[in-house]
Amino acid sequence: MTSKNDLSYSRTSLFSTEQFEVVRCEWSLGDGSPMHGHHWSQCFTLIEEGVFENTTLSGFKTTKVIGEPGQVLSTPAGTEHDMKCISPKGKTLHIYTPKIPDFGKHNNFQQPTARALQEKLALGLSQQGLSWENLNSLMASVYQSSISTESIYFMNQLFSGVLPENLLSSEVLSKTRTTMATFEASPVYSLIEMEVVQKLGELIGWPNKSIDGVSVPGGSAANFMALHCARQNRFPEFKTAGIYQSRPLKLFVSEDSHYSLKKACVALGLGSDSLVTVRTDINGRMLISDLDLKISRCLGDNEIPLMVCATAGTTVYGSFDPIESISELCKKHNMWLHVDGAWGGPALFSKKIRSHLNGIEKADSMTFDSHKLFGANLTSSVFISKHPQILLQANDVSGADYLFHNNSEVIDRGRLSWQCGRSPDAFAFWTLWKSYGSDGLGGFVDRLLDVTKQSIDWIKTQPRLHLISEPGYLNICVQVVSPQNPSDKNWSAHVRERLIEKNLSMVNYSTTPDGLTFLRMILSHPQIEFAHVKQILEWALEVK
Amino acid sequence: MTSKNDLSYSRTSLFSTEQFEVVRCEWSLGDGSPMHGHHWSQCFTLIEEGVFENTTLSGFKTTKVIGEPGQVLSTPAGTEHDMKCISPKGKTLHIYTPKIPDFGKHNNFQQPTARALQEKLALGLSQQGLSWENLNSLMASVYQSSISTESIYFMNQLFSGVLPENLLSSEVLSKTRTTMATFEASPVYSLIEMEVVQKLGELIGWPNKSIDGVSVPGGSAANFMALHCARQNRFPEFKTAGIYQSRPLKLFVSEDSHYSLKKACVALGLGSDSLVTVRTDINGRMLISDLDLKISRCLGDNEIPLMVCATAGTTVYGSFDPIESISELCKKHNMWLHVDGAWGGPALFSKKIRSHLNGIEKADSMTFDSHKLFGANLTSSVFISKHPQILLQANDVSGADYLFHNNSEVIDRGRLSWQCGRSPDAFAFWTLWKSYGSDGLGGFVDRLLDVTKQSIDWIKTQPRLHLISEPGYLNICVQVVSPQNPSDKNWSAHVRERLIEKNLSMVNYSTTPDGLTFLRMILSHPQIEFAHVKQILEWALEVK
Repeated sequence: MTSKNDLSYSRTSLFSTEQFEVVRCEWSLGDGSPMHGHHWSQCFTLIEEGVFENTTLSGFKTTKVIGEPGQVLSTPAGTEHDMKCISPKGKTLHIYTPKIPDFGKHNNFQQPTARALQEKLALGLSQQGLSWENLNSLMASVYQSSISTESIYFMNQLFSGVLPENLLSSEVLSKTRTTMATFEASPVYSLIEMEVVQKLGELIGWPNKSIDGVSVPGGSAANFMALHCARQNRFPEFKTAGIYQSRPLKLFVSEDSHYSLKKACVALGLGSDSLVTVRTDINGRMLISDLDLKISRCLGDNEIPLMVCATAGTTVYGSFDPIESISELCKKHNMWLHVDGAWGGPALFSKKIRSHLNGIEKADSMTFDSHKLFGANLTSSVFISKHPQILLQANDVSGADYLFHNNSEVIDRGRLSWQCGRSPDAFAFWTLWKSYGSDGLGGFVDRLLDVTKQSIDWIKTQPRLHLISEPGYLNICVQVVSPQNPSDKNWSAHVRERLIEKNLSMVNYSTTPDGLTFLRMILSHPQIEFAHVKQILEWALEVK
Repeated sequence: MTSKNDLSYSRTSLFSTEQFEVVRCEWSLGDGSPMHGHHWSQCFTLIEEGVFENTTLSGFKTTKVIGEPGQVLSTPAGTEHDMKCISPKGKTLHIYTPKIPDFGKHNNFQQPTARALQEKLALGLSQQGLSWENLNSLMASVYQSSISTESIYFMNQLFSGVLPENLLSSEVLSKTRTTMATFEASPVYSLIEMEVVQKLGELIGWPNKSIDGVSVPGGSAANFMALHCARQNRFPEFKTAGIYQSRPLKLFVSEDSHYSLKKACVALGLGSDSLVTVRTDINGRMLISDLDLKISRCLGDNEIPLMVCATAGTTVYGSFDPIESISELCKKHNMWLHVDGAWGGPALFSKKIRSHLNGIEKADSMTFDSHKLFGANLTSSVFISKHPQILLQANDVSGADYLFHNNSEVIDRGRLSWQCGRSPDAFAFWTLWKSYGSDGLGGFVDRLLDVTKQSIDWIKTQPRLHLISEPGYLNICVQVVSPQNPSDKNWSAHVRERLIEKNLSMVNYSTTPDGLTFLRMILSHPQIEFAHVKQILEWALEVK
């Protein structure tokens, strides 16, 4: 089948199966394709004759190359490109693998019942196995039935979209399946983890020689590790004796902090009563006066104020606690200062909002998640500290001589961790950082801040949209007012469910202390523009 | 280039780039290829004319199909196949992607210095990013410089080899990047995790309705969770108040148990002194008489015997503690019984050694790692318990209303976990289980037990090989006696280093209490045969 189509060049399918397709195109000067992607297919273009200009949009960056005969241009899965013939004639051979369209998926945000899913997918495990073909069909069904986190209209979590770099790094990880426990089993990945830790520490502003850190399975785990290290640092004797003889230890967090801090208190044996909640100001930032008051009260009760966890980027409002002021109180009372930057940590790379983190160099440790804003595969979290021996002191125990032979110049990184066998989680972030550079990562944050600003300006012109707080980051918290009953506090939650049911968008919602629901829109998809935010809100306003 | 080669059919390369190659073959009746793989390339074969018999070796299983014109036979990356023409004539079109050979890697076990690796790979992060092509080259270098865990001669860890199912499941995970925290964000994966937990619980023999469990980031984390649940179950008041008011809590493990139990005691605030080590018999099994004695001593000291962790498959010797007898002591003293089956858990599927786990239905909880023997990507661990509410009781806290809307019929699985955002780790194991069925997984264990038996019989005929213990599982602990100095205790460690330096094999070593080093060979690679074990030991005997 040969066709001279709208795109002005001719296109002949040479052969085609379920798994691949080979196409030849013939071009004249000035013929061009529009910007297009191939979803999960990769496309390779062999230039047989002529000269072409090829522009690729990959994640956060645009690349333009001139292609000449014999060259192969690759368009990885998850990227987009356009091509233009800039010579009198051109001939190209394209291979798509898997063939496009592959899974044929559209946005899927709808919430199936468990029973419907179980029956549709035949999720049950049994004695007999499946053929490779049936296993592949099952994988396609799993894909089709999953929520479309890759969509620009997915704003439900603190992450969105799939970067081509992640497909690449996770493939390499699968093929080099290894554990981070020892340097001998993973020399390259050990050095990569160390490089990520070191460079993050330098961005914070800690002295080069005092930076320590380790990958942990998620931001919650990093916060657990912070409390653990704070305790080890102040009371090293607890490592052997336990905390039985201690006066109660207290951990101070803002009322908008992440719930993992409470889980940490429970797991580490301190109990949830050890969590002291500090009030926030109108912008969701920890109130220093209230922190001061509560530390004093703790001392008055003969308890031990152990640690403050400042949140950099709260989950709902995206607020940044005032680290500089908190650090003064920590210094005064000999408290550990941890910064939970799971969501707001990328401000380290930003030109526009690096100042939100002023004073962070005085912190003792930090949580950094690259699987949120920066889009690495889940999870790619690190706990970093400026106490160069604390992780070893807190976590190393005897009894693993079979594993740790101490035969390399680099410390076996399992000794710093609660995990033994673990995947090289830092690799996904390192791959992104290598691909975009610090400038590219920072530019991405700053571009999204511009989109947020544009969106806010527009929201303020809309009578039925009420901003719940003035964003300092990438969270837009906005109430949709009911057209019928403006005092209906649940309308935004209702709107959210309708958008999901109609497969338009998946946006999360939250509730103010007085019970008003509102949409929480998270700007994190690498391709998001103001038009998308506006589109979602226009859909929201149309809900009846 | 067309050639009538040794393989008797003719082969013409139609076109070829760095990323793909298309080949046409013409066949006569009886022409056949030998069994061959394409390393990380996938190969698709379109049958244009004739009828073919195609046999595929994939992971633990062999499949034979008859292919007719129009059919596409796929050979996934990581599998092997042979083809035979069974009609008078045949014509086939083959596509390889990526083109073979791709990375051109040979076994790599050698231990580079950190500096050499850093320089060779340019691991450093900087302001500027890389082009897609340079990023791909870097990924190839990372691959080439990593240790060859996919090799049959890699026996250093409790895992070896890469299964094609893992490449597939990790690709699907990358494309559906999501978190297990809520059902609404991952309906399919939530049900998959539940199915894995439920079916493992049924294999253990727990009542259907009482099975609870959750994926955790590794076997160490599962052991942490066991101690946490044991504490919650006995002393629910500690969840809020902490353990300050408690008499010391004690955890009993064998001297061959995993070091993560000690880390758990430290992290959970009990302190490492709370770990009581019980002696083992000559086969590495916990001595019941010593356990009984030490529990009595604990009670006499007015301490609380909280939990016993029985090891199913110790790290060095592969021993199984006597669960039935331990369970009687646990019942008597109201103690939680946890079974650490990180390495030996697959005995649940075995016809030959299911009896090693006799009494496990009386246990309160179990650690199961599918990334060890069963080869799932790291990590794919579950903690399972027969207390249907214990995970929720131990881990659920308030403060996450923005996330958990309690709007689905299935509990949001983040509430059972210490993690918030986390990857669907159970999916890798579920994919393997689907592919092979319970029978296939059990058959794999039993086949490796046969290889172990054959290897042991041969070792016993070798005067310079001394078995350190009689294997009950897949660990072969064997001393290589020095040809020059038979009393040299370090010779096996020396041999191990030479095998690594020569890039022949990577086998771990350990040391007896009196300082004798020995090789610890782990049989876990899906394709391993007696010939491989013999080959490694012959190399070991040749070391001078």
